Amino acid sequence: MNQNKSCDPCVNDMLVQAKQNHIETAWDRYEQQLPQCGFGQLGVCCRVCWKGPCRVNPLGNGPQRGICGADAHTIVARNLIRGIASGTAAHSDHGRHMAKTLLEMSEGEAPDYAVKDQKKLADIAAKLNITAEGKELKELLREIALTTLADFSRQDESIPCTWLEKTIPESRLKKLIQLGIAPHNIDAAVADIMARTHVGTDADPVNLLLSGLRSSLADYTGMALATELSDALFGTPEPVVTAANLGVLKEECINIAVGGHNPLLSEFICDMALELHDEAVQAGAAGGINVVGVCCTGNEVLMRRGIPLATNYLSQELPILTGALDAMVVDVQCIMPSLGKLTECFHTRLITTMNNCKIPGATHVEFHTQTAKESSREIVRLAIEAYKCRNQDKVNIPQQSSTVIGGFSAEAVVAALSTLDAADPLKPLLDHIVNGNIQGVALFAGCNTPKVMQDHAYLTIAKELAQKNVLLLATGCGAGAFAKAGFMTMEATDKFAGDSLKAVLRAIGESAGLNGPLPLVLHMGSCVDNTRAVSLAVALANKIGVDIDQLPVVASAPECMSEKAVAIGTWAVALGIPTHLGVIPQVMGSSAVVDVLTEKVKDLTGGYFMVETDPVQAAQKLYEAIQARRKLLGI
Amino acid sequence: MNQNKSCDPCVNDMLVQAKQNHIETAWDRYEQQLPQCGFGQLGVCCRVCWKGPCRVNPLGNGPQRGICGADAHTIVARNLIRGIASGTAAHSDHGRHMAKTLLEMSEGEAPDYAVKDQKKLADIAAKLNITAEGKELKELLREIALTTLADFSRQDESIPCTWLEKTIPESRLKKLIQLGIAPHNIDAAVADIMARTHVGTDADPVNLLLSGLRSSLADYTGMALATELSDALFGTPEPVVTAANLGVLKEECINIAVGGHNPLLSEFICDMALELHDEAVQAGAAGGINVVGVCCTGNEVLMRRGIPLATNYLSQELPILTGALDAMVVDVQCIMPSLGKLTECFHTRLITTMNNCKIPGATHVEFHTQTAKESSREIVRLAIEAYKCRNQDKVNIPQQSSTVIGGFSAEAVVAALSTLDAADPLKPLLDHIVNGNIQGVALFAGCNTPKVMQDHAYLTIAKELAQKNVLLLATGCGAGAFAKAGFMTMEATDKFAGDSLKAVLRAIGESAGLNGPLPLVLHMGSCVDNTRAVSLAVALANKIGVDIDQLPVVASAPECMSEKAVAIGTWAVALGIPTHLGVIPQVMGSSAVVDVLTEKVKDLTGGYFMVETDPVQAAQKLYEAIQARRKLLGI
Repeated sequence: MNQNKSCDPCVNDMLVQAKQNHIETAWDRYEQQLPQCGFGQLGVCCRVCWKGPCRVNPLGNGPQRGICGADAHTIVARNLIRGIASGTAAHSDHGRHMAKTLLEMSEGEAPDYAVKDQKKLADIAAKLNITAEGKELKELLREIALTTLADFSRQDESIPCTWLEKTIPESRLKKLIQLGIAPHNIDAAVADIMARTHVGTDADPVNLLLSGLRSSLADYTGMALATELSDALFGTPEPVVTAANLGVLKEECINIAVGGHNPLLSEFICDMALELHDEAVQAGAAGGINVVGVCCTGNEVLMRRGIPLATNYLSQELPILTGALDAMVVDVQCIMPSLGKLTECFHTRLITTMNNCKIPGATHVEFHTQTAKESSREIVRLAIEAYKCRNQDKVNIPQQSSTVIGGFSAEAVVAALSTLDAADPLKPLLDHIVNGNIQGVALFAGCNTPKVMQDHAYLTIAKELAQKNVLLLATGCGAGAFAKAGFMTMEATDKFAGDSLKAVLRAIGESAGLNGPLPLVLHMGSCVDNTRAVSLAVALANKIGVDIDQLPVVASAPECMSEKAVAIGTWAVALGIPTHLGVIPQVMGSSAVVDVLTEKVKDLTGGYFMVETDPVQAAQKLYEAIQARRKLLGI
Repeated sequence: MNQNKSCDPCVNDMLVQAKQNHIETAWDRYEQQLPQCGFGQLGVCCRVCWKGPCRVNPLGNGPQRGICGADAHTIVARNLIRGIASGTAAHSDHGRHMAKTLLEMSEGEAPDYAVKDQKKLADIAAKLNITAEGKELKELLREIALTTLADFSRQDESIPCTWLEKTIPESRLKKLIQLGIAPHNIDAAVADIMARTHVGTDADPVNLLLSGLRSSLADYTGMALATELSDALFGTPEPVVTAANLGVLKEECINIAVGGHNPLLSEFICDMALELHDEAVQAGAAGGINVVGVCCTGNEVLMRRGIPLATNYLSQELPILTGALDAMVVDVQCIMPSLGKLTECFHTRLITTMNNCKIPGATHVEFHTQTAKESSREIVRLAIEAYKCRNQDKVNIPQQSSTVIGGFSAEAVVAALSTLDAADPLKPLLDHIVNGNIQGVALFAGCNTPKVMQDHAYLTIAKELAQKNVLLLATGCGAGAFAKAGFMTMEATDKFAGDSLKAVLRAIGESAGLNGPLPLVLHMGSCVDNTRAVSLAVALANKIGVDIDQLPVVASAPECMSEKAVAIGTWAVALGIPTHLGVIPQVMGSSAVVDVLTEKVKDLTGGYFMVETDPVQAAQKLYEAIQARRKLLGI
């Protein structure tokens, strides 16, 4: 293992300090866990009933079946799809929260919310076949909300989820229906997995994996509606310049980090930071309140408001170690429970806000959409109170941060392209793909894991592909990696892009008035926003009349860790996209499952998984997958 | 470990034969798995993300937190409630299947189904506040189906599930609403657990356990509606005399075992066995077709049709070893995947029927409610074909079986009581409880596990409690244990019941025209039918104006194993019932979780778990719980 835990020098520096101060971080806990259980890593540990735990010996010289007779294939497939179910439930819970907020708005019960992007709302209505003309806003919100909530409640299995149906190519939908994997209801897809993985139910690995594909498409559905509705409420992202890394914390300000995933709260924290500026100054913070982001709530507010990003998942403990973070306000998902214990050693107030996400050691201020401003005000005031306990002598903010040009929603990309061809904005992009100036598109998504050097594979693969003229998109903690490392800048384009890609990015950037090329990696948002990349791909596919699995588009999750990432990777495959995993997925104990996921699924969906832990090799494989697609397209 | 694997001599004999013939059974696989992973058994192994697996050292001298910082309490609680989610999903999937069948019937799309019990249908309509008068059957079915499906689709969190609301005392409902654990939607309760157990979401063990309680009540809801709708379609059970154990297989017949849980198919297999009698005889089976039951599908057809029970969960492989089983027809849940491999060594045809339950090695005949007869005919003909391959020389059916008086639905119990007091049937039962002739009621539920001697704890606890004049009810594989052991007979009452209990059972039995006492243990059905016992308890509670947690009613799951059993046990506690577990639940790694489940929950719901592996001690604790309730009632 490399001595450096991270590619981010700021992280490495802080980890040295943490060690000196005997403060435990995720990297320490990782080392404490070594060696990790091999059965679990291979996926062959079964705990679905209390006869067990059972485990299959992967070397073949021990038990080959659990007590019930389940073999490695059944066990691995069940474990995998339960993960997909959790990812689906998590993303879609966030999406449902959005839809319910729209419904509340239509009933006058969420008075603090407004539709910031009327055009997006109209686009959504059009997409869902809802007539907007002549309707009052409340009526329109209600119809959109109810149509969306139908994707959580429909009982007729023959009707696919509306948000799936309306956002993918017709040919893809047809294929999914033929395969029996077009979900009719997101919650039902989750419940289906939990029912069929009960002891003594589905034992057929292929049947199990198909239901995993179905749930992953429910995950896609929940993500698509979450992102789109968020855009309507809070604005569709447009290019914005900001910064990333711990240096965005400001000694002279009250620093509030927003972490988690859900913009319903964080948008108001940002508003309230402005509103309570004077109170902050009165409390002694000359600079007022400085909101920074962590993980994907960070990406949400970066995309829409240019809020700087402090760090990504694995290093989320470190802003607290600067001694300058006054409050860490979290909503849901990927929030380390360690923060509870860690903040006990600092003045930082950890504030949990969602009913389904409480952490021992945190102050819980339950957030309700009905009283969004009030809750946010209370939270920001807690930060001001905490600031008063800050020991300025102990403040140690690393002076490191990188410029970030973010905000590349699909709409923003199209808008930039339209400066080249207003009548047919996708044409320049397509032309460049056809003529090879852009070889293809790679989407980086996913998490961080201590099993590899933080951010390293993201940066390495990106450099390799950029040099080969592949257009790069990123979301989630992948986007965080690129943001911190300065890959979302014009300079990175100049430094790393191959000649033809560089020329294209420059032409678009300059035409769009950026006074330079587009950044090397386009920040598309939080992990729930991966559907933004799909929107773009679908627009391209529809324009030339092909399905997604014919496009030279690939995905890479070099540090996938969460069950949401597992779900995302799976729907990428279900939608036809070659998808790279940079860590060994916990399925290697079943040759059958590996074979389905990496080979057999090609015949079903056109997509497939490829596993490669070496980033240079991974880049090569991704590039080859792009070339294979180009060849089939005859370009 | 006792040399005998089971209390059932028939099982022990067959296991000796299996050993001689080198045939592997669940008991062998259990021994191969020993020693089982201690981390998993304690619940402290975490696999909710791919940073892991992580595990907390229960001895305190190793890691105390996973990489994310989750401690043993978080990890144990998350693991437990994911189990509850699976149990909920499994039961309610079965329930939804019933509701959808009603809907299909209302649309003329399930022509083979009929309402066998019009009175039950009217009772259901009344319970759900649906006016039956003046409605055509199809209209009524449609309304009941839609009202039921609303419990799977409602998006308004403030409205509890109808089937929960209408089947528990008002005071209990109020308490559940106050605690925030009355589910509004079954699937949503499952999805909620899968979302909040995602990495970095809920870390508060109490909050996690509360959502587990909520899901368990969704489980109760799904079970209640499954049982009630099944009764309307297939008839509410009435006392019936049949037999149990492998001796119910008949050499001169084509033997078909129905296994799993769902009566939608098995009812037709029974019908078809009669219809195809001549074909069977022509094939050489002079006795025609003999349908026997295994596990809970066995209990379903035993209760409604007096179909004999071959065996319960853990010994489900053994009917095949007799060489006389021609087909094993399975639907969903608790079907050992080992059957696929095992039937390869015999002429027995394993037939899977449900889309969400396929088993490698089985013949899959997909069952559709639209074509129930056709599918059933095909399946029974496969059994006839298989019979032709039977080697009669290898047939070895143990000549052991016990008489069973089954069929004690709540309605059947009330009907029996009404022969004593037609105007007020519950009065005699209440009077006997008040005067102490009956000290209380114990419900035995749950599974089998090879971790203890099969059936032993059921029988031991029952004998102890019966002797102390506790009325005994049983469902699921507990009922199977009692059925095989002859505890569902008049003779058992004479032999084991205490004097006052014996007198009461005799008075009721003779008044009801049984020419003897009621059996020692009343068979209330399959595991999904545990809600029958609740119906009876709720009727008693409502009659005297108390809540369930005031009644001298206890539950015992001496061999709980499946996640469904975990869910059932949890809703028993949520409904206020002291609930015994006879195997160590996989939560012992967290003192906080143990404390909540065994102590703190008392203050919330009135129910609680007690863990006791010694059956005599367990009986004592159950009896003491009854006495404590009696004391509080002042009786």
